Amino acid sequence: MINDKATREAALNAYRQHTGREYVPKSGPHDPPSLRDLAGLGLDRTYGDSWSRPGLDMRTKSFICMTLTAALGCDDQLKSHVAAAHNTGITKDEVVEWLIHLNGYLGTPRTNVALKAVREVWAGMAAK
Amino acid sequence: MINDKATREAALNAYRQHTGREYVPKSGPHDPPSLRDLAGLGLDRTYGDSWSRPGLDMRTKSFICMTLTAALGCDDQLKSHVAAAHNTGITKDEVVEWLIHLNGYLGTPRTNVALKAVREVWAGMAAK
Amino acid sequence: MINDKATREAALNAYRQHTGREYVPKSGPHDPPSLRDLAGLGLDRTYGDSWSRPGLDMRTKSFICMTLTAALGCDDQLKSHVAAAHNTGITKDEVVEWLIHLNGYLGTPRTNVALKAVREVWAGMAAK
Amino acid sequence: MINDKATREAALNAYRQHTGREYVPKSGPHDPPSLRDLAGLGLDRTYGDSWSRPGLDMRTKSFICMTLTAALGCDDQLKSHVAAAHNTGITKDEVVEWLIHLNGYLGTPRTNVALKAVREVWAGMAAK
Amino acid sequence: MINDKATREAALNAYRQHTGREYVPKSGPHDPPSLRDLAGLGLDRTYGDSWSRPGLDMRTKSFICMTLTAALGCDDQLKSHVAAAHNTGITKDEVVEWLIHLNGYLGTPRTNVALKAVREVWAGMAAK
Amino acid sequence: MINDKATREAALNAYRQHTGREYVPKSGPHDPPSLRDLAGLGLDRTYGDSWSRPGLDMRTKSFICMTLTAALGCDDQLKSHVAAAHNTGITKDEVVEWLIHLNGYLGTPRTNVALKAVREVWAGMAAK
Repeated sequence: MINDKATREAALNAYRQHTGREYVPKSGPHDPPSLRDLAGLGLDRTYGDSWSRPGLDMRTKSFICMTLTAALGCDDQLKSHVAAAHNTGITKDEVVEWLIHLNGYLGTPRTNVALKAVREVWAGMAAK
Repeated sequence: MINDKATREAALNAYRQHTGREYVPKSGPHDPPSLRDLAGLGLDRTYGDSWSRPGLDMRTKSFICMTLTAALGCDDQLKSHVAAAHNTGITKDEVVEWLIHLNGYLGTPRTNVALKAVREVWAGMAAK
Repeated sequence: MINDKATREAALNAYRQHTGREYVPKSGPHDPPSLRDLAGLGLDRTYGDSWSRPGLDMRTKSFICMTLTAALGCDDQLKSHVAAAHNTGITKDEVVEWLIHLNGYLGTPRTNVALKAVREVWAGMAAK
Repeated sequence: MINDKATREAALNAYRQHTGREYVPKSGPHDPPSLRDLAGLGLDRTYGDSWSRPGLDMRTKSFICMTLTAALGCDDQLKSHVAAAHNTGITKDEVVEWLIHLNGYLGTPRTNVALKAVREVWAGMAAK
Repeated sequence: MINDKATREAALNAYRQHTGREYVPKSGPHDPPSLRDLAGLGLDRTYGDSWSRPGLDMRTKSFICMTLTAALGCDDQLKSHVAAAHNTGITKDEVVEWLIHLNGYLGTPRTNVALKAVREVWAGMAAK
Repeated sequence: MINDKATREAALNAYRQHTGREYVPKSGPHDPPSLRDLAGLGLDRTYGDSWSRPGLDMRTKSFICMTLTAALGCDDQLKSHVAAAHNTGITKDEVVEWLIHLNGYLGTPRTNVALKAVREVWAGMAAK
């Protein structure tokens, strides 16, 4: 069910384009075998169901994902999306404009939390 | 303080471009006079501070606003942003793709709430 | 357990002071008898546990409750708290200042939702 | 991709068991054709991916869904899940106990919003 | 008020059953004496008001608490509830099924945050 | 637009009064120059637009900000506001009463997260 081959392949392609690297499933040393189903699900339901579709450009999808993870307060996910955004050509200045747009709609506290995450991504990029 | 003239003018211009109509401040029959400060603030802090800036295109800002209001569960504001999005050339199919993207990241319940709001906008557009 | 007499009495007193009227438990025509436990719980856990305590003034507690219900997007509860706030002497102008304070911290969409609720309270007060 | 046949069939079966009726896709009079993809996605990603799996009983999944929709403030979805819960044998008293459990963890305002939704379901059941 | 003896005793019993250990109130080196009231309140309002009630089984209450803390993004509390869930017989596979159920309803980012917390609990269990 | 001089000056004054120290814009080593606009925006939209207004006392605004950041789960911002609250004369006992008030309205998990943040502030104050 959650192992449809065509979806998985489309997901892996979209993941590669978006992040600039191959998908490597994360696993923990104490995971039960069933956890593989969840990992596949997370990949298929985002990259397979949506990123692989041509109807909306990757740039727009990047801003949507950055916005959602900032609104939900999911900092690790926000950092992944900001890093991937830079990989696909979104500039630092555009990320700043995005933060300025957030400020009025989401308020200053959540925007500052997002800014902190963004700065950690920039520090990581500079360290490479 | 919250009545800076240049900001207000820039805000009104951006509002016109985005929504296709003139800004008319909403007021209630029992509002105290001080409420005008709040109305101005809402306009200046969104259209003045951010929509008026050139660094991010209007299309991207539209998707950000739709995403934020969907994530926050602010249905009336979501409807305004979907209507304005159509005014600036975003198509129905693109709104569907946006909803498909939301589904994996925000979950099905919130996506269905957003879909309901979108359909009300479409019904309103068809009734014109 | 959830029927401690002293708590209930303190809760009823605090409710009366805050809202200006007697507490009348709401019940629905299809409620099972066990629902009375929940109704008591709601009263005891807010008015009994906290409103009845002397350590923080009623005015401050009012602003905290208005803020929480606005942040949570619980519009009916926000309306009750704004109405009670006016009952204990908080003015319309102060409610406007509170909304202005929300705007920067919570963002414009949620502030506008709160403003709509506030206006409904004001309309109800004017109709009396 | 989002039209995998086996998933869809499993989803329709699980939907029937949970709700006691056949799945009928909702459509709006102004929907573009692409919206069918989203409707299928909502069904496959919940009933196909999860409800169809045997590893967790339907009763537990019901309480999880009721809890999530209450926490997210998605009232229409909460009502559907409470109605389906009663269809699968969860009693009114158990729904009350669930609300009592919510109260301490989610707070009184959100619990009262959930209670209102529950009462509307009960009124609908009594009207049949 | 918040020191009702019967509630406290019932709370302590329920806590012991759920977590497998005695309740030890946490205190900080700089707490004012009044903080004891809050600590008692947290215990009484969850374990006293609800966990001590017989109307819903401990297993169901565990899943509700895990779901709420995941939805609220309260990671430390989620970890406590996952640990206690394992103490009362909920298996790792069931926790995985719970995460799979979350994924469709709460979205992938929040589910991944919950997965990270779950893995930390599993690592802690393995280290014992 | 976002550099209105009068607003900035009022913001800096209000910031000084509230926190007891001069505002020092935070900057990161990899910030693009445009980030200065965002920093100014955060200051102007909170301290300039609202804290500088006389219509609501600083004490009330402190409780509103503490409540908002606790409700949003923005822990760093909550810590800043608790520290500033103590600077303006709000006592530890009043912060405890505020947490007790939160407990019934926001639920125990979020209240415990807030308590943890508060304790870190107290530890920092004691270390001075």
